[in-house]
Amino acid sequence: MPQYKAPLRDMQFVLHELLNAEEHYSKLPVFAETVSRELVDQYLETAADFCENELSPLNQIGDREGCKWDDGVVTTPTGFKEAYQKYIELGFPSLSAEEQYGGQGLPNSLGITISEMVGTSNWAWGMYPGLSHGAVRTLEHHGSEQQKNTYLPKLVSGEWTGTMCLTESHAGSDLGIIRTKAEPNEDGSFAISGEKIFISAGEHDMAENIIHIVLARLPGAPKGTKGISLFIVPKFNITADGAVGERNAVRCGSIEHKMGIHGNATCVINFDRAKGFLIGPENRGLNCMFTFMNTARIGTAVQGLSASESSFQGAVAYAKDRLAMRSLSGPKAPEKEADPIIVHPAVRNMLLTQKAFAEGSRALVYFLAQFSDTVEHGATEEERKYADNILSFLTPIAKAFLTEAGSESAKHGVQVFGGHGFISEHGMEQIVRDTRIACLYEGTTEIQALDLLGRKVLQTQGALLKDFTKIIHKFCEANKDNAEQKEFVEPLAALNKEWGELTMQIGMKAMQNPDEVGAAAVDYLYYSGYVTLAYFWASMALKAQQKLAEGSTETAFYNAKITTARFYFSKILPRTKSHVATIASGVSPLMALAADDFII
Amino acid sequence: MPQYKAPLRDMQFVLHELLNAEEHYSKLPVFAETVSRELVDQYLETAADFCENELSPLNQIGDREGCKWDDGVVTTPTGFKEAYQKYIELGFPSLSAEEQYGGQGLPNSLGITISEMVGTSNWAWGMYPGLSHGAVRTLEHHGSEQQKNTYLPKLVSGEWTGTMCLTESHAGSDLGIIRTKAEPNEDGSFAISGEKIFISAGEHDMAENIIHIVLARLPGAPKGTKGISLFIVPKFNITADGAVGERNAVRCGSIEHKMGIHGNATCVINFDRAKGFLIGPENRGLNCMFTFMNTARIGTAVQGLSASESSFQGAVAYAKDRLAMRSLSGPKAPEKEADPIIVHPAVRNMLLTQKAFAEGSRALVYFLAQFSDTVEHGATEEERKYADNILSFLTPIAKAFLTEAGSESAKHGVQVFGGHGFISEHGMEQIVRDTRIACLYEGTTEIQALDLLGRKVLQTQGALLKDFTKIIHKFCEANKDNAEQKEFVEPLAALNKEWGELTMQIGMKAMQNPDEVGAAAVDYLYYSGYVTLAYFWASMALKAQQKLAEGSTETAFYNAKITTARFYFSKILPRTKSHVATIASGVSPLMALAADDFII
Repeated sequence: MPQYKAPLRDMQFVLHELLNAEEHYSKLPVFAETVSRELVDQYLETAADFCENELSPLNQIGDREGCKWDDGVVTTPTGFKEAYQKYIELGFPSLSAEEQYGGQGLPNSLGITISEMVGTSNWAWGMYPGLSHGAVRTLEHHGSEQQKNTYLPKLVSGEWTGTMCLTESHAGSDLGIIRTKAEPNEDGSFAISGEKIFISAGEHDMAENIIHIVLARLPGAPKGTKGISLFIVPKFNITADGAVGERNAVRCGSIEHKMGIHGNATCVINFDRAKGFLIGPENRGLNCMFTFMNTARIGTAVQGLSASESSFQGAVAYAKDRLAMRSLSGPKAPEKEADPIIVHPAVRNMLLTQKAFAEGSRALVYFLAQFSDTVEHGATEEERKYADNILSFLTPIAKAFLTEAGSESAKHGVQVFGGHGFISEHGMEQIVRDTRIACLYEGTTEIQALDLLGRKVLQTQGALLKDFTKIIHKFCEANKDNAEQKEFVEPLAALNKEWGELTMQIGMKAMQNPDEVGAAAVDYLYYSGYVTLAYFWASMALKAQQKLAEGSTETAFYNAKITTARFYFSKILPRTKSHVATIASGVSPLMALAADDFII
Repeated sequence: MPQYKAPLRDMQFVLHELLNAEEHYSKLPVFAETVSRELVDQYLETAADFCENELSPLNQIGDREGCKWDDGVVTTPTGFKEAYQKYIELGFPSLSAEEQYGGQGLPNSLGITISEMVGTSNWAWGMYPGLSHGAVRTLEHHGSEQQKNTYLPKLVSGEWTGTMCLTESHAGSDLGIIRTKAEPNEDGSFAISGEKIFISAGEHDMAENIIHIVLARLPGAPKGTKGISLFIVPKFNITADGAVGERNAVRCGSIEHKMGIHGNATCVINFDRAKGFLIGPENRGLNCMFTFMNTARIGTAVQGLSASESSFQGAVAYAKDRLAMRSLSGPKAPEKEADPIIVHPAVRNMLLTQKAFAEGSRALVYFLAQFSDTVEHGATEEERKYADNILSFLTPIAKAFLTEAGSESAKHGVQVFGGHGFISEHGMEQIVRDTRIACLYEGTTEIQALDLLGRKVLQTQGALLKDFTKIIHKFCEANKDNAEQKEFVEPLAALNKEWGELTMQIGMKAMQNPDEVGAAAVDYLYYSGYVTLAYFWASMALKAQQKLAEGSTETAFYNAKITTARFYFSKILPRTKSHVATIASGVSPLMALAADDFII
């Protein structure tokens, strides 16, 4: 079973060296005085200790035991509840929440780096506090004062947890067709009736109350997405003095048997005229929900990073240990009966792919995390707007591309173990199963691809794309005379240019036939993901070269960065070529077959 | 839960129209008089009925229940034993075995088409008779007359089953380092001692005896692969009159908890001075084993085909039924609250990928199956040798490429279902889990890649590659003036040429550094796989065009073939571009990082 070791050195490299976290915080008035490098590192170390020693040992237990459902009551796996109590004691739930509700008022970006460690050591467990976080954000942004006062303090402290109840059995990607009803009661509350499915952490034994955030339709609401409202529906009603009162008509009908994340309860939640309270304006529920969804999508991007990191850690340890065959270029460990498999190029290719994805994902996620700080706390409207643009553009890339990369890394993790990878005790196949959901929930890869190409790129006439390609362009211009960077800057500049041309090409075709967007979107997303990561790998290589030039003694660390960047550019980035060619062939090869002719 | 429907029309298309099965059999003296199209179709229909109605309903039960181990005794899932009795009654175990041992003497290729249906409806179940088949082949080829007479009749009838005991805990890909010992007894038998792992069907309750074929080392045997011998070790010793006698010292120590194929018992088998009998010459066990391994590798290629087919069937049904959002080019089912998701290009892309892989895999597997007939029964030594060359070359491609394609198809199957794909009851995630082993056992993808590029291509100075590219070249030459085929023939001819150039390029580099072979092998394998399937898709499109030109009324069927070929050429085949570029970057980006510097 793989023992998680928090990659603190690499996290600090990205935070402090690549992204200058201290400088970033110093520019945000709310954090300028309070958030220092020392504070950040202290939190990281506390979280690393908790994740390595409390959560990681529960990861396989959670998978093996799963959650148990008995007549509406859900029991989480052994140790989950106790770990959650420790998590509360350490103050993690309140980290980035507002101070007036008991939060520590620390940056969201710090919370995200911690969520990486939580998620990598035990994703299923991490979803319980993770979902709460989304509910807190939604309430902070859209709740009334009274609602905030009622629910936030207990959610922020972690005493209660939250959920997001969107999906119904017939409505997942397409929330416009949900059927759950909200009928006004005389006291201003609403009676919520309907069945929600796939409610993560929808019922459990870890907290004394669960606050559901529910999408439902008011009587006479317009059809489609413009007739959906958002409601707070607590598991236990809250008394006038804020205590937990009588049970609301909310019940967990069953939990799903699923491929992975067995330790998290995926619930069917039945609302039977349950008492609920409108959040935000009527019929604007989906808009309010987007606040949460963006957070959730970055959170899911973290799952991709986590899968790359955990499968990488497991595979490297095994590849150094396992002996099989001799290197084709002659024995490397002649004293042993065979060479460790890390000598074989095909094994190294898998390990380096995982490493390139894990560390590249970390750079992208932390970069996004900083912009998420700026969106909320930027000093000027201009800064906030710019950050929002970058965030809007990169979120679907991060969510879809990093989760697909995580799935690929997990696949390599199994493969490096050979037949042993298929066996549960080694923990590698669990990563494949756990991370498979990341490409599905919070908007599938295909939905993210449409969001990226349709909404973010084409609907803005390329404005958001340009905001990001400008960053890459500036980087390339600044380093074009650096001989050591040439191997990265030249191909990156070429791809950056091609990105715009490719977009133009698709845009032109889409004017003739809107289905061209759907046909190109997934390849476009992958293309965008590979180029985005290429930018981060070039940036990391540059930073490493600078550190070496400055005389750093950490030569192995920085050389590994440069080597991995080189690997990424020569072995991963060529994948863009297929995507370009596939996009060029357009929509017609996809649409010619009648639905009934797929199977004859 | 997906209900398997045997794709008889497509199987018949490949067998009779594309590959002219009747003509093929007519050229093999042993089958010329006996095997007709009617006979083939009759067997297919009987097998289809059995697979659809007996095996398919047990597929999810097997996954859910798994096998149970209790003090050395293994119980298979509900219904498995009964289905096996029916399988025996229908005469399937004896199909392609030699008549003198009770076999029906029918072609191996017919057995392979039937194994497709068995495997697609229930892979875990199919492994029990599948492993027996390997043991039978090994005994037929290498057993003494006395051994054949003792074991074959009962194995052929299906009353006993067989296993192949190769792997040990420390030795999988590298069988040269196995430790199981065989010490001579005074009566000419051997005392076998050691522990074998990953023994599929190693212990179960479906047959009265289990015949293990075991690799072990004789005292004083040379180190490495040249010191391994092959032994027969029955679970129950056989009495002088051929009956089941007393228990041999063979025991199932445990069964593995694993990612998938839960219905099949993956056993640790302990031999404690168990009585065994040498098969074939001393120290030549691995060579004898290769007979079985080639069969097993085609058998595993079938698993890839099966995963593509089953996930395709499930996904198409769901995509026609599930409603979500409107087509970007306007509502296609305005009377419904949303369009069926099969209208969306991204969904079609996944379905067509599955279709192209399933039907392309079928063509390649059946093509190989015919050559496997010819290797054994070809009229002349020249024919047999040629068939052996084609088979040797294409086996690693079929094994590795088709299983990877099967895994990809299974992934799409989950994705088409969205969040529901993650839920066990729909059966789509089971396909992912079950088929994951196919890329690992019988030689991982990386081992197959080395076998292809190192042994089959470079060690023969490209001779085996040329045998196959000549087939493609002839096809392209014959059809170069066919305007309707131009879209397929031109790119295929170009790729076929590039295949040779790519090989030359790698060969040159490998002379400088043997690790270049390991660095290029996996990409080379994928490249080879895509080109090989392109040949089959072009051939199928040609056949379809011919049928339409002849006035066939099955226009939907044949047009679907042409449409799918077009999809394959425009949306899948461009993947070769990345592999070419990746190969060009050579070994150095893979070898620069010291083993200890992967994680710092």
